[in-house]
This record gives sequence, C-alpha cells and structure tokens, in this order.
Amino acid sequence: WVFVWEKGYQERDSVVSSVTTKAKGVAVTNTSQLGFRIWDVADYVIPAQEENSIFVMTNMIITVNQTQGTCPEIPDQTTGCESDANCTAGSAGTHSNGVQTGRCVPFNASVKTCEVASWCPVEDDSRVPRPAFLKAAENFTLLVKNNIWYPKFNFSKRNILPNISTAYLKSCVYDARTDPFCPIFRLGHVVESAGHSFQDMAMEGGIMGIQVNWDCNLDRAAALCLPRYSFRRLDTRDADHNVSPGYNFRFAKYYRDLAGQEQRTLIKAYGIRFDVIVFGKATVLCDVIVLYCMKKRYYYREKKYKFVEDYEQGLAGDAEQ
Amino acid sequence: WVFVWEKGYQERDSVVSSVTTKAKGVAVTNTSQLGFRIWDVADYVIPAQEENSIFVMTNMIITVNQTQGTCPEIPDQTTGCESDANCTAGSAGTHSNGVQTGRCVPFNASVKTCEVASWCPVEDDSRVPRPAFLKAAENFTLLVKNNIWYPKFNFSKRNILPNISTAYLKSCVYDARTDPFCPIFRLGHVVESAGHSFQDMAMEGGIMGIQVNWDCNLDRAAALCLPRYSFRRLDTRDADHNVSPGYNFRFAKYYRDLAGQEQRTLIKAYGIRFDVIVFGKATVLCDVIVLYCMKKRYYYREKKYKFVEDYEQGLAGDAEQ
Amino acid sequence: WVFVWEKGYQERDSVVSSVTTKAKGVAVTNTSQLGFRIWDVADYVIPAQEENSIFVMTNMIITVNQTQGTCPEIPDQTTGCESDANCTAGSAGTHSNGVQTGRCVPFNASVKTCEVASWCPVEDDSRVPRPAFLKAAENFTLLVKNNIWYPKFNFSKRNILPNISTAYLKSCVYDARTDPFCPIFRLGHVVESAGHSFQDMAMEGGIMGIQVNWDCNLDRAAALCLPRYSFRRLDTRDADHNVSPGYNFRFAKYYRDLAGQEQRTLIKAYGIRFDVIVFGKATVLCDVIVLYCMKKRYYYREKKYKFVEDYEQGLAGDAEQ
Repeated sequence: WVFVWEKGYQERDSVVSSVTTKAKGVAVTNTSQLGFRIWDVADYVIPAQEENSIFVMTNMIITVNQTQGTCPEIPDQTTGCESDANCTAGSAGTHSNGVQTGRCVPFNASVKTCEVASWCPVEDDSRVPRPAFLKAAENFTLLVKNNIWYPKFNFSKRNILPNISTAYLKSCVYDARTDPFCPIFRLGHVVESAGHSFQDMAMEGGIMGIQVNWDCNLDRAAALCLPRYSFRRLDTRDADHNVSPGYNFRFAKYYRDLAGQEQRTLIKAYGIRFDVIVFGKATVLCDVIVLYCMKKRYYYREKKYKFVEDYEQGLAGDAEQ
Repeated sequence: WVFVWEKGYQERDSVVSSVTTKAKGVAVTNTSQLGFRIWDVADYVIPAQEENSIFVMTNMIITVNQTQGTCPEIPDQTTGCESDANCTAGSAGTHSNGVQTGRCVPFNASVKTCEVASWCPVEDDSRVPRPAFLKAAENFTLLVKNNIWYPKFNFSKRNILPNISTAYLKSCVYDARTDPFCPIFRLGHVVESAGHSFQDMAMEGGIMGIQVNWDCNLDRAAALCLPRYSFRRLDTRDADHNVSPGYNFRFAKYYRDLAGQEQRTLIKAYGIRFDVIVFGKATVLCDVIVLYCMKKRYYYREKKYKFVEDYEQGLAGDAEQ
Repeated sequence: WVFVWEKGYQERDSVVSSVTTKAKGVAVTNTSQLGFRIWDVADYVIPAQEENSIFVMTNMIITVNQTQGTCPEIPDQTTGCESDANCTAGSAGTHSNGVQTGRCVPFNASVKTCEVASWCPVEDDSRVPRPAFLKAAENFTLLVKNNIWYPKFNFSKRNILPNISTAYLKSCVYDARTDPFCPIFRLGHVVESAGHSFQDMAMEGGIMGIQVNWDCNLDRAAALCLPRYSFRRLDTRDADHNVSPGYNFRFAKYYRDLAGQEQRTLIKAYGIRFDVIVFGKATVLCDVIVLYCMKKRYYYREKKYKFVEDYEQGLAGDAEQ
C-alpha cells in the first residue's frame, strides 16, 4: 500500500533537451598595449559554440608577437639564477614556459633568470588586471534557446513560448517579476541573482549555472508547462579557502610575419562560463485501480491521455517504469 | 507483492558512454565574393572537436577584411539618421555592431546611418543565402564511434560491431533496412529520416539528435546487445510560431596585413549541430526468492551471471539499487 | 515491508557538478619539416576549453602552406590513373581530398593520379609517426577542478579540499596511495592506471575517463564526503578487432601570404581526450516511522538535518522522491 502511494499513482518521465546560446554586446577598451579597440562576440566567445555552455571572456593577459626562440624566464622561486650553474639544460618544470638552455641571463637590470627555449617573450601573468579588462561584459546579453522533449509522453516544447513575438524577443530582458519568460539574460543580472558581484567574478572568472526547470503536470493543459529560470554559481568556494579560485585558460592566435615565420598572440583568458542545466520531470496521473488491471492497461491509456504514443518504446533512461 | 512485480525481478543499470564523430566530404563553391573555392572538413566543422556533438556549417554570411575603425552602421529602425543630432557618441544598443561616434554619415547614395567604432565594414546579415551556400553538405557523411559500458554488470561494447570489417567501414552507409549497423550516416539521410528537408534546414540551421539506443538483456548472449539508431530534430518549432528559427553563431579568422595591423574575416555560420544521444539500460533477470535471501545473495549472483563483478562498487548514478 | 527495506529508510540525491580542467607542460620537437620547436598548452589543447573534457594532442600529421589550387591526389586504389579517361571531372568520393578536374597527372616519377581541385598539396596521412610526435605529453599534468552540489540536501563541496594549501597544489601529483586527494594528474599515470600503455595510446589517440566518485553519507560529518578518483579507457576495443582504432580529427590554422592569398596549415591531430565523469549519490538516514507520519514530516527534517533547505524545491531530476 505504501508503494502505491509513493509510485503507483503517477507515470513520470525525465527530460531530453537541446540547448543553444547566443551572446550579444560590444565592449570598448583603450590601453597603451592595444590602443583603442572594439570587442565583439567573435572576439570574446571562445570557442565559438559549445553544446550546453558558453564562455564569455571578461579579463585577459595578452602577450603579443611571440615567436619561437630563447629568452629569460619570468622570475620566481625556481627560475632565478646567479650563474649558468644554477640552470640545467633540457630541464622543464611543470610550471615552466619552456625548456632550459642551461644559460643564466639578465631578465632586467637587476634580476637574472634561467634562459628557456620557448615562445618568446614568455607570458608574465603575475598581475591580473583590476578592474576586469572587459568589465562592460556586465551588460552583454545571452539568448538561451531550449527545446525539451518527454519521450514517454511524446511531449515537446521550447522556451520561446508560443505567445512570444519576434518584436518582444528583440527587446525583452529577463526579469523574474516583470519578464519571467523572456529567454534573454543580462550577464550582470545572472551573476547578481545568484548573490555574487559581477565585477569581482569578472576579474578571476568562474562558472555560472543557468538552470531551466520544466516540471510539468501533463494532466493539465500543455500551456501550463512552463520554464522557470534560476541562477547559481557552480564554482563557489569557502570564503576562507581561496585556493585556485576562478576560471581561466590559454589560447593563441597564429600569424605569419613578412618573412613567413610563425608568430602568435597568446591570451590567458579569464571569464565566466555559463552552463545551461535543464531539469524537469513530467507526470501524468494514472488511475491506480485500472493501472494494475493489466489486461486493459493500454486501451485505457490511449483513451485518457494524449501524450503516451511512444510509451512502450521507452527511449529515455527511464528510472521508474 | 506489487513491488516485486514492478522491480524485484530484475537488476538494471544505466549506460556510461563515450562518443567521437568524424565528418567527411568536400564542397565546391563559386561566388563573385570568394571565387572558386573548395571546402573540406577543416573548413566547415567548428570547433574541430566536441564531446558528444559535431557542427557542420551549411550556410554562411562572410565579411572579409574587417579592421578596427569607424564606419556607418547597417540601416535599420534604430540606426538611420538625418544629422549628428540623431546619433549619440558612446552609445551601443544590444544589437549594435559597435559604439556610436556621434556622427551621421552616408551608408550609400541615398541612406545615412550613425557611424560606429567597430570592426569595419560591419556585417550585413539581412539576407541569408538561398539556397544554402554549402548545400552539398547533404552528401557529407558522419562516422559515429560509440563505446558503452554498464558499470554494474561490467559489460562494455562498441557500435563498430565485431563482425564489421575495415573494408565494410570504408564503403558502407547507414540504412535502416539494408545496413542498420553501419555507423556512417549521410547527413541528408539523417535529416530526412526525421521528417525534415535537408535543404530547408541547411539555410537557417538547426539541431539534429542522432539517438543510439542500447537496450540490452544481458541474460541473453552479448552478441544480441546491439545499437539501434534513430533520428530526431531537436529544435522543432510550431509551424505557426516561426520566432528565432534555426541555429547560427559567429566566429572570425584573424590575420595580419603587411603593415602588421590585425584583420579578420567574420563568418556568421549557419549549420546543423548533430548531438549524439546515447540511451540504454541493461537488465539481468534475478531469481526473486533468492534475491531476498540476503545471506546467499552474492554467492548466487557470481555463479549465475558473468557481468556482476563491480556490482558492489556501484560507480554509476544508479537510481535503483 | 519489502518496499520499506529497499527505499524507505533513506533519502537520496543525485549529484549536480561543474568541471574545469587545465593542462600544463612543455614539449620539444626537432624534425626536418618543422625544425626545433617548443609546444605549450596553447598549441596542443584543442579547442582551448570544453565543458567536461580536454583534448591533448599527442601525435600529428602536419601539411604546411596549403593553398586553394589543383594537384594530384594521394595514390590509392581509387585515385590511380593512366590517362584522363580514368578521371571524372566534378566527381568527389567520400574519402577524396577534393573534386576531380578530369586530368590524370604525375604524382611522382613513377605514379600518376587523378588531379583534384583542393587545398594543395593534399595531406598524405598514410603513415602515423612512430613514436608519437609529442611523446613528452606523458609527463604533462592535468588539474581537474570539480564542484558538486546535492540540491535536495543543499550540500556542496569542491575537490580542492579545505586542507589543501596553495603550496601543496603547486607541487603535488595524484597518487592513489600517497596523494589520493591531489587533483593534479600526470597524463602517463592516468593511462597506466587504467592498464594501458601511454606511448601506444599516444600514437593513434583515444578516450580516457577520469572518474570522480562522490558517494556521501550526509549523516556523517561533511568532512568525510570525499572524492575518489579512478581511471578507465573509454574507447577500449576487442584486441582481436582492431577496426577504426584511436581518436583523431583535423583542424587548420589560416594565414595570408604576402599577396593576400589565403594559406593554411592543416593538422591531423591524434591525441587523448580526457572526459571527466562525476558520479555520486548522497544519502541521509531517515526515521521510517516518522517519515510516513506526513503531518510532521517537514518539521522533523528541519530539526534533524542540516542540509534540507531546498528539499521541497526539488530542482534536480530526482528519481526517488
């Protein structure tokens, strides 16, 4: 009897979903290194597309015009030297930028470091820009398109609801109170809704979850099956344990110089990765008595419910049947 | 008693899977903008690899030789102007290509628009090429390699079945009737099997699901545990609600000109993302009486079943145990 | 009664997780084709970031300075020819590098093949470099950062445990016996722990699973909820069925030559994709009698457990409630 109460009275199904995202927005920077520069979506979204995720670069350390060669390492505990005897030709530590040549060379007027064969000059990432280089990303927007499908009930829906017009979609911005079904999110709003500071997060990077919850009671009208959005920082750490914070990775743009030699611009990109996480379960109320009356089971369902066509195919990883 | 009927008589496990994909095929285009040009997999698959997904570009709007500078915006409701008074220095709308300079400049002989600091010239994406630029993608093929593993039963298998030879794999193409176990899919066939037109989908892009279903009864011979393929458009929309259709994103290829200035070619890529979705559950019939005879449970299983070695480790997110 | 034994005595929850990865290490190569060259993370990780996965290139076939043009195909059964009559203008097989021009041209002094319009010269991938080009990748390291969250119990934790210091994280390397909680893995160790040879795998590529298992009994102290790491080759094949082994894909770096013509370097990249797979379930012991005493249910939980705040929100795909 307990079992019937817990499970027998409803059919459930887990969601199958597809997600695409598109960022919009333009930032201006003006630095001595790069001059006046405009950044658009092709510059700051890396890679250009992912399956359920989008990375927006918010800060960066850029090392321009690197070429293959030899140069002094950045000074730290392991790279400083006084003479060649302190450097070991062929050695490369885990955190090295290259392979030591065995020579001790001047890094600047006062400091000497071991020389490395490397992409030169080597990156100096000792200082993260503050405030974040692309702090304007706070006002960028993110369109999330999500299609869901409950295989057992053959019910599908998208988060761009039937009553959303092209004009509305061009201008709306998500707000839990005024525009809860607008699928366009201001990045600053996403981070702040989760209780964090966008500008803090922009400096060292992080991971935000954009949660889309589709709990649908398919006994009621399909129009009542609606997405609910919520936001959560996924890489939260203890405030008192600030080890290896944030999110960054390196990539390079490769060029050829006039002599045909390869050059690259190395970018250590800090930013926020937005992982879209779709939750959901659909339920259909069954009649307990008839459900266990096996002989009449399928006939009964077909009459009562609209969305049970592929029930017997059981395409999804269904934990409950 | 009901409980025993529903769950007690079998052990189940959910699938752990890995997927790789590889596209093949060459397309020719001949346009006034780009001339005669060959497109191969390194040109049209973006990014080069993803975990469970592959994007094949089928259409594009290309803007060559962009440089950082100032230029007139593309005319629309918000960018048209008659004098500088209509333009606001420093402003940038969500859909802007850049930041307004405050000047109203001629876009062409008859139209003036606000000037922006931007990658110039700005992209004009008002017309999507029809038919799709890489319409030949219909005949490209996609090899899907899928390994599955049922941790509870320590059973693993790949979709390149033991009886598939290298020669067969070089020439076969999936067909539900004649070659149901060939893991190479013609893109056009995938889309058409789901009831859609490839050439329509190629123009604005979309998301296709390639479903691999591994429902295995491990009481029977392992050779009978076979993949079944099916295809589903994941971004289907209501025919009467054509808001924000398709799938596209922007990326750029960066160059240096002879003076060392950065240039880029901006591509708005429309295409089809193929998401490989692996379903599956394995079952092993248990003897109800002995199953609840806890003391003898493990001994009994080890004798009866081959694939239960790591049952007690329970590595997977197992909802049933 | 059976039901109570199986399910009633505990609440369970499935894990929500986020993963980031960062590779470190430098390799040196010295070949006649490329000369002396250093490879760092921006060169060998492709694409620069993914959601739960990281690809490290370990071997490659590089074709430099390709341009759009016409050239002879690589000789094989289908491309050899004696005269133009053997070649069909406009044809392109699935495995072609381009579209035939209809001419039969010398490939070298002794062999003629059909000419193709293509990126020229076409790639010759008939020989995979042995040993692997970037065999030094064996000593590269991979930092895995993993945050988990049990929504039902609102319990979150990261795999960089509270007692891990910045200094430890800079120097530690995972070892099941001596450093089981160091989240930095030597690539060679990962492959060998799964029972495979790194150098074999490096040649043709493959997929490794890095499994993080978080089975947590939240009745006990949170400090006892710890990650356990294990490694598994995900693309294992039958030793006697070596069809389509390994993992590779192609990508290109695009350049402009001095005349402004597009060039590219095509790379067929073999390597190891590390998929981070997070497992876990949390359990909290319930009091059976009170659990079914519905009226007092929530009050009871709030007093007994610390981590049940969002229990009623049921954000995750919870199969058990």
